[in-house]
Amino acid sequence: MIITLRPHTNTKDKEELKARLLSLGVVIHESTGENYTILGLVGDTTGIDARSFEALPYVDHVTRIGAPYKLVNRLFHPQDTIVDVAGVKVGASEPMVIMAGPCAVEDREQLEEIAQGVKQAGARILRGGAYKPRTSPYSFQGLGEEALDLLVQAKQITGLPVVSELMDENQLELFEEKVDLIQIGARNMQNYALLKALGQTKKPVLLKRGFANTIEEWLMAAEYLASYGNPNIILCERGIRTFESATRNTLDLAVIPIIKKRSHLPIIIDPSHATGDWELVESAALAATAAGADGLIIEVHNHPEKAKSDGAQSLKIDNFTLLMEKCKAIAPVVGRRL
Amino acid sequence: MIITLRPHTNTKDKEELKARLLSLGVVIHESTGENYTILGLVGDTTGIDARSFEALPYVDHVTRIGAPYKLVNRLFHPQDTIVDVAGVKVGASEPMVIMAGPCAVEDREQLEEIAQGVKQAGARILRGGAYKPRTSPYSFQGLGEEALDLLVQAKQITGLPVVSELMDENQLELFEEKVDLIQIGARNMQNYALLKALGQTKKPVLLKRGFANTIEEWLMAAEYLASYGNPNIILCERGIRTFESATRNTLDLAVIPIIKKRSHLPIIIDPSHATGDWELVESAALAATAAGADGLIIEVHNHPEKAKSDGAQSLKIDNFTLLMEKCKAIAPVVGRRL
Amino acid sequence: MIITLRPHTNTKDKEELKARLLSLGVVIHESTGENYTILGLVGDTTGIDARSFEALPYVDHVTRIGAPYKLVNRLFHPQDTIVDVAGVKVGASEPMVIMAGPCAVEDREQLEEIAQGVKQAGARILRGGAYKPRTSPYSFQGLGEEALDLLVQAKQITGLPVVSELMDENQLELFEEKVDLIQIGARNMQNYALLKALGQTKKPVLLKRGFANTIEEWLMAAEYLASYGNPNIILCERGIRTFESATRNTLDLAVIPIIKKRSHLPIIIDPSHATGDWELVESAALAATAAGADGLIIEVHNHPEKAKSDGAQSLKIDNFTLLMEKCKAIAPVVGRRL
Amino acid sequence: MIITLRPHTNTKDKEELKARLLSLGVVIHESTGENYTILGLVGDTTGIDARSFEALPYVDHVTRIGAPYKLVNRLFHPQDTIVDVAGVKVGASEPMVIMAGPCAVEDREQLEEIAQGVKQAGARILRGGAYKPRTSPYSFQGLGEEALDLLVQAKQITGLPVVSELMDENQLELFEEKVDLIQIGARNMQNYALLKALGQTKKPVLLKRGFANTIEEWLMAAEYLASYGNPNIILCERGIRTFESATRNTLDLAVIPIIKKRSHLPIIIDPSHATGDWELVESAALAATAAGADGLIIEVHNHPEKAKSDGAQSLKIDNFTLLMEKCKAIAPVVGRRL
Repeated sequence: MIITLRPHTNTKDKEELKARLLSLGVVIHESTGENYTILGLVGDTTGIDARSFEALPYVDHVTRIGAPYKLVNRLFHPQDTIVDVAGVKVGASEPMVIMAGPCAVEDREQLEEIAQGVKQAGARILRGGAYKPRTSPYSFQGLGEEALDLLVQAKQITGLPVVSELMDENQLELFEEKVDLIQIGARNMQNYALLKALGQTKKPVLLKRGFANTIEEWLMAAEYLASYGNPNIILCERGIRTFESATRNTLDLAVIPIIKKRSHLPIIIDPSHATGDWELVESAALAATAAGADGLIIEVHNHPEKAKSDGAQSLKIDNFTLLMEKCKAIAPVVGRRL
Repeated sequence: MIITLRPHTNTKDKEELKARLLSLGVVIHESTGENYTILGLVGDTTGIDARSFEALPYVDHVTRIGAPYKLVNRLFHPQDTIVDVAGVKVGASEPMVIMAGPCAVEDREQLEEIAQGVKQAGARILRGGAYKPRTSPYSFQGLGEEALDLLVQAKQITGLPVVSELMDENQLELFEEKVDLIQIGARNMQNYALLKALGQTKKPVLLKRGFANTIEEWLMAAEYLASYGNPNIILCERGIRTFESATRNTLDLAVIPIIKKRSHLPIIIDPSHATGDWELVESAALAATAAGADGLIIEVHNHPEKAKSDGAQSLKIDNFTLLMEKCKAIAPVVGRRL
Repeated sequence: MIITLRPHTNTKDKEELKARLLSLGVVIHESTGENYTILGLVGDTTGIDARSFEALPYVDHVTRIGAPYKLVNRLFHPQDTIVDVAGVKVGASEPMVIMAGPCAVEDREQLEEIAQGVKQAGARILRGGAYKPRTSPYSFQGLGEEALDLLVQAKQITGLPVVSELMDENQLELFEEKVDLIQIGARNMQNYALLKALGQTKKPVLLKRGFANTIEEWLMAAEYLASYGNPNIILCERGIRTFESATRNTLDLAVIPIIKKRSHLPIIIDPSHATGDWELVESAALAATAAGADGLIIEVHNHPEKAKSDGAQSLKIDNFTLLMEKCKAIAPVVGRRL
Repeated sequence: MIITLRPHTNTKDKEELKARLLSLGVVIHESTGENYTILGLVGDTTGIDARSFEALPYVDHVTRIGAPYKLVNRLFHPQDTIVDVAGVKVGASEPMVIMAGPCAVEDREQLEEIAQGVKQAGARILRGGAYKPRTSPYSFQGLGEEALDLLVQAKQITGLPVVSELMDENQLELFEEKVDLIQIGARNMQNYALLKALGQTKKPVLLKRGFANTIEEWLMAAEYLASYGNPNIILCERGIRTFESATRNTLDLAVIPIIKKRSHLPIIIDPSHATGDWELVESAALAATAAGADGLIIEVHNHPEKAKSDGAQSLKIDNFTLLMEKCKAIAPVVGRRL
């Protein structure tokens, strides 16, 4: 951590600050330049709140050198984490894992047709929403527990583990029982009550990036899970909010090499929410594969035009099948297979 | 709602779509242009999911004409809502209300000194964090219930109603008992489990705008509260996330006239989180006053440099007092008083 | 174009507006809903300024249905444009074209070594900056005309056509003589004086997307070139500015399928400026190839650590060569070859 | 400047880097932490390209401590700059200056009616566009030189100095002769050819912030003007591009205290382009006044609904007059007068 003092800071203020810093257990390296004096702090600064020093009128700004996360930091854990989702392994040294299924579970027939279809095309985990975060209170909010039961049945039939989004910590027990991979949605990435609750289980978590959160904030959300005890975390990029409105979000594929450098956690891509338009999903999914993703999560529907939510971004089963063929061809170029 | 069909859409597809639309209870006005055919839907389209039609390959795009919110829409409720916070009235026809206090409640002495200070300067509601949403799991997370009790005591001494942030629906009962105005923080603006729970009370809610949420999404979050039964909503702008990093967020003061036009709810401004820097707070607070805000919420600390959170953006009591004097002078120019 | 009138608009105002619209040569379809009246305009609305109607107090808003561009619109020109850059053809039905070379031309030796290296690896156009748009007036501004002469020499030796950025319309004649493809940089995408000047030539133009411009504004900049007489336009995405600072920009690969749908112009990707970090370039370049780009433009340097500009984002020749091998393997999966 | 070396950087690499740094004339302070080694550079680093070091594989990142601008930096020039626009002085110790007039000059009658109206209301500089940067090549592009002549006539009649936007360096001579304050528009803020040309005159420049440029980039554009010889610079904030589409741009008023802290240049606000909606202009203009702006520039039209450009954001003369009354009442609260 580097603290830059404003020009003309008096000695008394500087010495008081240094005494306070020393009491936090760090070593101080001081450099005096033409205009600014800088204090370099050496030692473990993870627990130090950089902003508290910015309250001092003679501090110009504070710059963090090391990352504020430890448990999810590759620097301290060089080996790739492999997350085991009911037997399906997700992570860098494993084959890519495709998760697919409807935005929302609507009924048994719908779910089973889609589950069989995506399995046949190569998907290895079934997705399906039970509780849906909808912008409007007047939109379909999901079938709830009934949907979870339908997912359990679909799993029995197809053998595919299931992933579904948890929105309410009071349903955690239910999800622990019925779901193999619990999704934290983009809107809840900084819902710390939920993160803390989930951190106290060992259930694998699919942690979506908030649509306006930085990579550092995302890794800090993962650090919440890890520091509360749950190391089974898969990160998922699903697009960020920008000024461009031609797509629902802007897919930020640079997160793949960046996450791989900074963290040991697996990273998968959601091209459906990123683009919001089924006609753009294939291009984005292939790009994610070429960019080195550990997996994909894709919305697939048997009748998108009748879907109760997000039909506009759902692939039909046959288009999904064609996409899988192309992914299988691209993956080996970047040292992976499906 | 306007549905634009792609060039060369065949008649069969168009007629099927029209039959489906009629079954939703709307009237259709069709216009055929040189390249596109447009279908104008007349009637109540609030419950129609525009995106479901975009799943159709022959639909180019769907445009909503009316707003998707009803209960918080000024069109249907022209009169200004006045929210009563334990006797302090907040809203357009009332004097501006200043809420002030520390980011986090730290101890009795700190809270009482600040509470007395801000009351004397003109604040009418006391703010104080009990449970803090912190980016890092290693940062101070708030005193929890102890802080709520200290707020109750400070209220007894000063007579100021209190506002504090709720992060976990399991603490709602506690907040209902001890807090006069319950804050939903920016990170939880789309935490629908929390909104639904709070919607089932009558407790006044301070609904902060998510730092990457549009005005429409914000009003839809308010619509959740209202549609679940709680009309006592005060909106609070606290800055949005942009590319500019010289401030913590970018304060969007245009929301004041826009919210006043679209909705009947009160709107207040938080210059502390918007700027993230105490040296910028006065300028932002005066701007908000001149722009017509119904109130302000400002972080004040007796010793900002020792604050356990957000010291960098906290005003000292004397600076806050000077600011209040200036606000009092500006308010009458825009037809208000403090 | 759809004009939405506010509730309670009086008949006189509406009739005056309709008379004005009829005088512009459009046909009006009127629909009256519960709250709003909408006027649908049928006919050529390209030349109508939508915002002028928003000045009327009784107009709520105006929505454009058709695109505001004509010459670059695929609707009116379904066939893909192929741009001929001194014999190298760029466009959808042609092989992908790789452009590579140093950010800035520094001297003859540097340029020739790089030119030979990238040619051998498979590049078909040589890039090299002569005039550099630098944020700081104290940074290296490029060798100017000397650099153009070195590019001409490198072309003679390698046979590679050359691309370089034009910043000043007064140098257009020089560029017309010495450069095969003239680049308009991101900062100048809306420099209309430059666009108009270049529109009066037939020289192929590489039109970079401004880092904060929408896809529509980008196509409108291309429309400037086309409407002034120059149809030889290659679009280039190089990342947009977002809140994320882990990369220099956020690469928006969705532009590839979107541009291909809306326009007939070729679209290439610049992974170097998009990421700003050589360690991220390979991942981005492979993603762009998989997403269907018509080409790539990549910064390559023989000694990046000594480069006079943008060394941080330049690949070494051997890394570029490895990247080309992978691109060659991916391209056929999406129906292309290098 | 701080250079952070990656963990396990070998000594040879580090020593080579240090030798290179010493050759640039700086002094090095080295600190070795648990994971990273940091090199603090002391001395004048303005001319050092931070990114060149990031090309080195063992450099993690480079952090600049001091600002990269010198001539416009308050640190080196503590006294406020006052710009004299044909007798009207703009700057911190002077009264606020209001600039007003039509977006585009349309004809003599229009310009004179508006000029008289705004003068009477208190404006002290007349604005009027002669060459208009329009997104569409099919929109009205301005009357050109004829408009400049009409501005000269309006100045003769009213005594108001005039400001107009220059887009093409080839018209600089014309502008030097006929215009008192030359505007660089947002789209041209990084048009370095234009900045260099204008830097070689002494004509006062109104430098608008690019709609996606940081405050630092803006000050660097001002540094271009200053370093080429022209110190007569007035900065103008006109809103930045964000995800929110309810306004044309998001007005960033925090720039006022930030610019005043970092630079000695005057800063004015353009509420018209920031909001894009005349109904929002008053609120924004009053906010800017309360925030401490040195001036405002506002679009006013006698018949906004017939304006050839930007009618939607133009105030009528009577609304502008009412606004001026309110500004006059607010200014003294922040130590200013109109």
